[in-house]
Amino acid sequence: MSNIFQPPPGTRDFYPEAMAIRRFIEDTWRRVSIRHGFVEVDGPTFEYLDLYKVKSGDEIVSQLFHFESRGEDKTQFALRPEFTPTLARMVAAKANALPRPIKWFSIPRCYRAERPQKGRLREFIQWNVDMLADPVTGLRSTRECMALCIDAIREFGFTPKEVRLAWNNRHLMTAALQDYGFAESQIPGIFVLIDKIEKIENQDRQRLYAEHGLNDSQAVVLNEIAAGRLPRAENATNPERISQLLQEFQREAEEVGIAEFCDFDPRIVRGLAYYTGFVFEVFDAQQRNRAVAGGGQYDKLIELFGGPSLHAVGFGMGDVVLEILLRNKNKLPANLLPRPDVFVVSALDDLFPAQTILAELRASQWNKDHTEIICPGLSAITSYKATKNIGKLVGEASSSGARFAIILAPDEWSRGVVKLRDLATREEREIPAADIVEQIHAALSK
Amino acid sequence: MSNIFQPPPGTRDFYPEAMAIRRFIEDTWRRVSIRHGFVEVDGPTFEYLDLYKVKSGDEIVSQLFHFESRGEDKTQFALRPEFTPTLARMVAAKANALPRPIKWFSIPRCYRAERPQKGRLREFIQWNVDMLADPVTGLRSTRECMALCIDAIREFGFTPKEVRLAWNNRHLMTAALQDYGFAESQIPGIFVLIDKIEKIENQDRQRLYAEHGLNDSQAVVLNEIAAGRLPRAENATNPERISQLLQEFQREAEEVGIAEFCDFDPRIVRGLAYYTGFVFEVFDAQQRNRAVAGGGQYDKLIELFGGPSLHAVGFGMGDVVLEILLRNKNKLPANLLPRPDVFVVSALDDLFPAQTILAELRASQWNKDHTEIICPGLSAITSYKATKNIGKLVGEASSSGARFAIILAPDEWSRGVVKLRDLATREEREIPAADIVEQIHAALSK
Repeated sequence: MSNIFQPPPGTRDFYPEAMAIRRFIEDTWRRVSIRHGFVEVDGPTFEYLDLYKVKSGDEIVSQLFHFESRGEDKTQFALRPEFTPTLARMVAAKANALPRPIKWFSIPRCYRAERPQKGRLREFIQWNVDMLADPVTGLRSTRECMALCIDAIREFGFTPKEVRLAWNNRHLMTAALQDYGFAESQIPGIFVLIDKIEKIENQDRQRLYAEHGLNDSQAVVLNEIAAGRLPRAENATNPERISQLLQEFQREAEEVGIAEFCDFDPRIVRGLAYYTGFVFEVFDAQQRNRAVAGGGQYDKLIELFGGPSLHAVGFGMGDVVLEILLRNKNKLPANLLPRPDVFVVSALDDLFPAQTILAELRASQWNKDHTEIICPGLSAITSYKATKNIGKLVGEASSSGARFAIILAPDEWSRGVVKLRDLATREEREIPAADIVEQIHAALSK
Repeated sequence: MSNIFQPPPGTRDFYPEAMAIRRFIEDTWRRVSIRHGFVEVDGPTFEYLDLYKVKSGDEIVSQLFHFESRGEDKTQFALRPEFTPTLARMVAAKANALPRPIKWFSIPRCYRAERPQKGRLREFIQWNVDMLADPVTGLRSTRECMALCIDAIREFGFTPKEVRLAWNNRHLMTAALQDYGFAESQIPGIFVLIDKIEKIENQDRQRLYAEHGLNDSQAVVLNEIAAGRLPRAENATNPERISQLLQEFQREAEEVGIAEFCDFDPRIVRGLAYYTGFVFEVFDAQQRNRAVAGGGQYDKLIELFGGPSLHAVGFGMGDVVLEILLRNKNKLPANLLPRPDVFVVSALDDLFPAQTILAELRASQWNKDHTEIICPGLSAITSYKATKNIGKLVGEASSSGARFAIILAPDEWSRGVVKLRDLATREEREIPAADIVEQIHAALSK
């Protein structure tokens, strides 16, 4: 019997330290998105169950938490397993009213109805970045998305030695496979095979090759691809195409400053059928099989959701794998809990003065017309201990991480002054009790 | 038949403008919470269904979206209708390891399986603030929660003429009602009646009074309470108790600077059975029946969830009612979308230089050891129009809300310079192309 006082399997309790890490991750995603000109959106946590069949077919249902609407028409809803169907629906509904290009990001919580395992939980948070309806076709949207993704990777402190972006292009792969005699109808199945080929043992590969009806030279090609190489067929229709695309990509990647992170990799095809051109994955340079982010072009999707034909590219990055990567590479800052500006130490018998000073420090100051905050309130805390020992209280103030302490001692207070202590330098000076707020603001702005 | 391309009834699509309002609300809640020394927590979006019965009994089930766990033990889960059961479970599980007092806030999305109506959606966001295990009993935690609540109200720009906090104390009400001959066993039912008494028509009141077995003087008392007055019984056991409590509260409210917002109001008892002492609600001063926030003491709850006996007080504020209030009182800032720092205007034939400058502006700069960001990247955007008409592009830059424009014109570029334009003052000056990032940072820090 389950213990109802535990979080459900595959979900997480975010106590303050865990929440501070989540906030650090989400804030970094948001900050970097905004500086690349993307704007934040979100949708409902649950959608009509049928919405998820549009992109992924009926088989998706077994991977969803779904439930019935209550009291009315018994509609089936499902918790979102990803954001893309919501995005596609939202874009399709207002495609002609939205300024173009559409550059959106979102940070939704998503849900998978599967057995939890390391790096895959039932509830997770995913950064989604999508750029649609760029009037210029081709690489530009892809380049912008990759640049944003790598800027976030850099912002978390990862270097090109620690994290790699591997890219490929399904058009290129299709043409290259056709040169080896693969029929167009075979290629979607071959992509699914390539997507998992690294994880398949050699003897299993031969069986799968036979099942797909590959001849010997085609089997050799797939083995080469599994090793990260894309061989050139002798009778290739356009033998220069690979090197041309590589050069073009290299120039684009240099332009936006991400070339040092990027590798061409024919193994990256992304299993999902809806990708149409460029695809990429970002992963731990030492552990290739754990992707921290992935995405690509999906030019046909908006039409499926009732909208116009729009170029589209996007990627997702999940918080669970990212947090493992941050820990493994030692990139999590030591103390992520917010640090207070001021700690009020009071050795007075009356609680009133300390409480009033706290309230004044915390309050924002408004302009005369009360239309704008001209000076934001400060983060101010105090002790909950019964002691009036100033030394002990100043010790507590120091370990709280506060920048300054205001010290209310009986004799000074009777003279109308308090001490302002810089908790880093340990310098103290007397200031008039009436000027505390002003003096703290001045000290903080130095 | 439902249109699966619509958001489910009672949920919302957050397009950029709506998302910016949500972000403004959430950021304000978070900022104010932190400056009062509260730390952020969160829990799973869904819990074991049975967890919700602990506090609210079996009748809660009909108000919940619930679903079965898949593939294993057929456990029932439910989407959270509120955060308190999760908080109580989390506190109970680590009660002895957590630093005291526990001062937590959270900003969860919550869910109600009911027909949506104005101000009540199926999916909403609720700011939760809770203070537990304060070593000093009595008013202090309540005062801190009320002060935080009112500081947020002030931070949104509301004045005491626009928003009021009404408070009461269930202990006081119990004693006062006992003075009028109400039996202790009657009082929970009477609280439920008082909670909705304002909304009940006069003739229905008489019927309800009869159902509760009230005598004439008791009916008079309830009518007085319905009008906002608490009469004093002639045979009162402690006739000074009301005025004592009022004085005590007044002093506390003055201490933390919120007295101008607060009224004693005997109608505020909060329907929920788990409140144990102080209770309060915050509402539109012109529309009393729409509470934007509400809370109180709940000293018995943590024990119900398997924890120790702990003093506790908390409140919640929902985003849906708050947003209506912000709109009604004209408190939503005009443009909440983030404003870029720089707009790069390029009239060059080559796209490369503008893309590279954007990438450099956006990149954060790290210290030599690569342990710390010493200069955060800037928000930089550009035009997606095909034109090379500098006047038009500068016009686009101005209406983007950016602070500065960098203008790349062919003749200047060939001389190794670009123009830096202040989009507010329209002042322009030439700067070396190699110094763009440095000069923009310098201009922004002025």
